[in-house]
Amino acid sequence: MASVTLTAIEGIPMVKAGDDPAVLIAQGLKQTGLELRDGDIVLVCQKIVSKAEGRMVHLGDVEPSAFARNYAARWGKDPRLVEIVLRQTSRIVRNDNGVMIVETGPGWVCANAGVDESNTLDDDRALLLPLDADASAARIRSGLQRLTRAQVAVLVTDTFGRPWRDGLTEVCIGVAGINPMLDLRGTTDLGGRELHHTVVAVADELAAAGGLLMEKAAGIPAVHVRGYKFEPYEGSAKVLIRPPEADLFR
Amino acid sequence: MASVTLTAIEGIPMVKAGDDPAVLIAQGLKQTGLELRDGDIVLVCQKIVSKAEGRMVHLGDVEPSAFARNYAARWGKDPRLVEIVLRQTSRIVRNDNGVMIVETGPGWVCANAGVDESNTLDDDRALLLPLDADASAARIRSGLQRLTRAQVAVLVTDTFGRPWRDGLTEVCIGVAGINPMLDLRGTTDLGGRELHHTVVAVADELAAAGGLLMEKAAGIPAVHVRGYKFEPYEGSAKVLIRPPEADLFR
Repeated sequence: MASVTLTAIEGIPMVKAGDDPAVLIAQGLKQTGLELRDGDIVLVCQKIVSKAEGRMVHLGDVEPSAFARNYAARWGKDPRLVEIVLRQTSRIVRNDNGVMIVETGPGWVCANAGVDESNTLDDDRALLLPLDADASAARIRSGLQRLTRAQVAVLVTDTFGRPWRDGLTEVCIGVAGINPMLDLRGTTDLGGRELHHTVVAVADELAAAGGLLMEKAAGIPAVHVRGYKFEPYEGSAKVLIRPPEADLFR
Repeated sequence: MASVTLTAIEGIPMVKAGDDPAVLIAQGLKQTGLELRDGDIVLVCQKIVSKAEGRMVHLGDVEPSAFARNYAARWGKDPRLVEIVLRQTSRIVRNDNGVMIVETGPGWVCANAGVDESNTLDDDRALLLPLDADASAARIRSGLQRLTRAQVAVLVTDTFGRPWRDGLTEVCIGVAGINPMLDLRGTTDLGGRELHHTVVAVADELAAAGGLLMEKAAGIPAVHVRGYKFEPYEGSAKVLIRPPEADLFR
């Protein structure tokens, strides 16, 4: 019987800059009554990673550029927040109707460069994405492995919107130890025909599954996954970024 | 301890036109050793729904239009298959580089109108999406409830690509008994601040979770979900379609 169980990791406190997410997650696992085993996966919400890494900017410290001021005036935004978004942006994909869809430094395409106004520590700080979410995932993974001696994989996730479909879903922006993609090309279907084009973004499917339990208001920033057989991997989550030449919506 | 368990429903045979998916799923659940309970969710892959509903077209029966022939010649496609896609299409969103992204009759935006060449019964038939996947989900739900007396929800899912992110993920195209959206607007975050824009597409997160177990080659066309507390609902999955006026990529 193939089965995957996701469990909300409880008891993780409000995270402050300098905290070690691995230590807090290990404590949460204990409080939840879970013992990590080899092959488990831990999904970690970007917010606690960014907070632990001190990826906060005080709005008061930001001097908006001319473009940030123009854009903010046009759409009724806070020019300092627009400036913060632009500093995380390498290319603007769309900026119609007051919605800013951009390409971030690492190459993720998302609204407002993933800069979040909610769930920050107080009202005048904005939370940025981790500088290198793969490195964040790797640190949490090695911390958990040191603390628990289990060989696990870690995903850092964030909540993104998407074209054509309404509502947000959790996606993966950083991995450690797990191949984000499952390449079924060359395998055959039930009729013996080759499955030509099928590469599954399992890291995003795992993140989405975790999203079901990461109800923000309930303070569940991490989810434990058991039973999903993943492919070991030493690379980056950036394989989840569609190559621009194969993307009709850049 | 908040926990969600997904289990692959085994033993579902190759589906033929006229089969009742509810009966096959109920048999599969039994073979898998699962008994449906109130509050469970069953995720069903579109392919077996379409097959059961006879949504197959013989390529030999299709007379391509002039546009279908022109497009097929330009991009090296089978003009009959292009014609089949166009017959399911109400609007072409992009058709560059031989990739046809379209809006289907019900309003889903996806590649090739969801018309699939793989996993069909033989080589000269194409499989279309269900005419009304909500109605399909409702039929499966009432069948399962009749057979098992459990009050369950049903999702019909399909495998879609997406802009910006590589790899396919499972998404929801039909629902029965479950609200596809979780509206957190008006709830407060950990800092007591309102979560302004957060509506979560839980139906897509559930579908994606199921995708982890629906490995096509292994013949798992349905997944059982236990432990996810969903909101009862009598509406359509079409609330997952982003309204065109709020979509910068139509």
